[in-house]
Amino acid sequence: MTVSELTERELIARIQRRLPPPPEWLLVGPGDDAAVVEPERNRVEVLSVDCLVDTVHFDRKFVPADAIGHRALAVNLSDLAAMGASPRLALLSLALPEALPVSEFDGIVDGLTTLASRHRMHIAGGNLTSTPGPLTVDVTVVGSVKRRQALTRGGARPGDELYVTGAVGSARAALEQLRSGRTSALATAYLRPEARLRVGTLLARNRVASACMDLSDGLADAVRQVAGASGVGAHIDGDAVPIEPLAQEWFEAQQQDPVFAALAGGDDYELLFAVRPHFRRRLAAVRRLTDVPITRIGVCTATPELVVSSSKRSAAPLPPGYGHFR
Amino acid sequence: MTVSELTERELIARIQRRLPPPPEWLLVGPGDDAAVVEPERNRVEVLSVDCLVDTVHFDRKFVPADAIGHRALAVNLSDLAAMGASPRLALLSLALPEALPVSEFDGIVDGLTTLASRHRMHIAGGNLTSTPGPLTVDVTVVGSVKRRQALTRGGARPGDELYVTGAVGSARAALEQLRSGRTSALATAYLRPEARLRVGTLLARNRVASACMDLSDGLADAVRQVAGASGVGAHIDGDAVPIEPLAQEWFEAQQQDPVFAALAGGDDYELLFAVRPHFRRRLAAVRRLTDVPITRIGVCTATPELVVSSSKRSAAPLPPGYGHFR
Repeated sequence: MTVSELTERELIARIQRRLPPPPEWLLVGPGDDAAVVEPERNRVEVLSVDCLVDTVHFDRKFVPADAIGHRALAVNLSDLAAMGASPRLALLSLALPEALPVSEFDGIVDGLTTLASRHRMHIAGGNLTSTPGPLTVDVTVVGSVKRRQALTRGGARPGDELYVTGAVGSARAALEQLRSGRTSALATAYLRPEARLRVGTLLARNRVASACMDLSDGLADAVRQVAGASGVGAHIDGDAVPIEPLAQEWFEAQQQDPVFAALAGGDDYELLFAVRPHFRRRLAAVRRLTDVPITRIGVCTATPELVVSSSKRSAAPLPPGYGHFR
Repeated sequence: MTVSELTERELIARIQRRLPPPPEWLLVGPGDDAAVVEPERNRVEVLSVDCLVDTVHFDRKFVPADAIGHRALAVNLSDLAAMGASPRLALLSLALPEALPVSEFDGIVDGLTTLASRHRMHIAGGNLTSTPGPLTVDVTVVGSVKRRQALTRGGARPGDELYVTGAVGSARAALEQLRSGRTSALATAYLRPEARLRVGTLLARNRVASACMDLSDGLADAVRQVAGASGVGAHIDGDAVPIEPLAQEWFEAQQQDPVFAALAGGDDYELLFAVRPHFRRRLAAVRRLTDVPITRIGVCTATPELVVSSSKRSAAPLPPGYGHFR
């Protein structure tokens, strides 16, 4: 049996089975967006690592070098955002094909350092190696959050309402357009995503969210993960899902169901979060502090089913998310 | 121009030029064995990332899966040892070829978690991705050290004596033997190296070493890096270099100069460190607390030359170290 016959979740479970019981200071271990540790009382650190591989996560044919660097950091920042954490530093580990032009190397570093500076975080170190394989960009980030404010996937209860930031579907539509050799008005959403760090910290500080996750593997996957970790089901209102209008047009022109395409598409670095009904006021306070749209898209249920319904079609099972494994 | 035309040091310099001035809390940035940060006063953290790529850093033909996992963590622990730090946690990022057998995946994780448990550190998280290229194992470690005790490469002064732990040459000899299809009595040194964590923390706590580095790219490279970072030269006594006897035999049988082979060979995870002459007593105290041999191999000089001499040959320039880049 090869690893390609297992899901990412199954592989992670095989790792978890090999770990000793977690120490007390490991507040959140493998399986969430990021690890949360408390090396000293009341000082909580959040750590995440993400890896981009050429031809798997990007294609140098249509992804410029600086966008590779930007994305490699942004996907990690999105994991911090999903925990309500603020970034402090990053480590950059690059596996470089020998034929990589130095100008591309510089571009990757430029994209990464520019984004890092904007968030006032610093590249503290890293590693360089050569590889006979594809360009591989591995970024580790470290951030911080207050102990009781860390957001995890596992706190939603039946009746909690589900919200999503921004709009979804743009990255999938952009990727389809770029792959087919077209220009894309949505290219920025795919090439230079912005992690929702401010919304994440607002949700954490105002104790709005009972669970939170980013949409790196798509909205459907995020709903599935939050529901699974929280032990609830979910009912998603397909009509409410905020689909980027240009993406909607594209999906319709391609004769794809826009709601299902947007739900299943990956690379939208928005946040999905759950809110107890009686915390709606707290959410209103957060809305006043940010321009990022926040849309109610469904509700957590006591029954375990994951369902999406819309005015056009009756209730259907949630589509699978986007995965790089089976 | 491609990256293969530049040295690792030149590539790191290109990254450093793109970084803003380091914040005050970044005590040691890119270019040392590990990064040292002080997120809060007097609490110092040490971070390191290292990446092993199949066919570059190991060969699955003769490196068993558990040894891949062991080495991927050990090389990082060695970086912590070189800073005088104690490990706390690791993040594991794996890029997996689709055809990798699950049994090998399990073996890699077993090798890593077994070594982690022995050092009472925990795998706090990580990332899994598929790759069309070679198996790539990226490990990030986080450890801690007291602020004034962190060892760097840059504190040696002329007159400081240079010491090395253990014996050198074993990994190179083992690799040459395994590559040529032989069995090797030195295989363990190459396959399952032990980071010198205890010696590192003893050197740090007893304030013995003015500079320290591990030998991942060979003893000659370590001497060059410490001398460069400290702004000194070095004179190495070739007769004093503690060469593993079986490695010495092998080099002689291969008609290689054993001293030069041992100096230039990589993958020895020993420590090179400098000691002020009047701190010899402190060093004696450390020797009493460890069984690891510690051998004086030379002295730092005011002139910038890096020289090795022995009874068999007159003074010669230090050979280059082992590098995965040009």
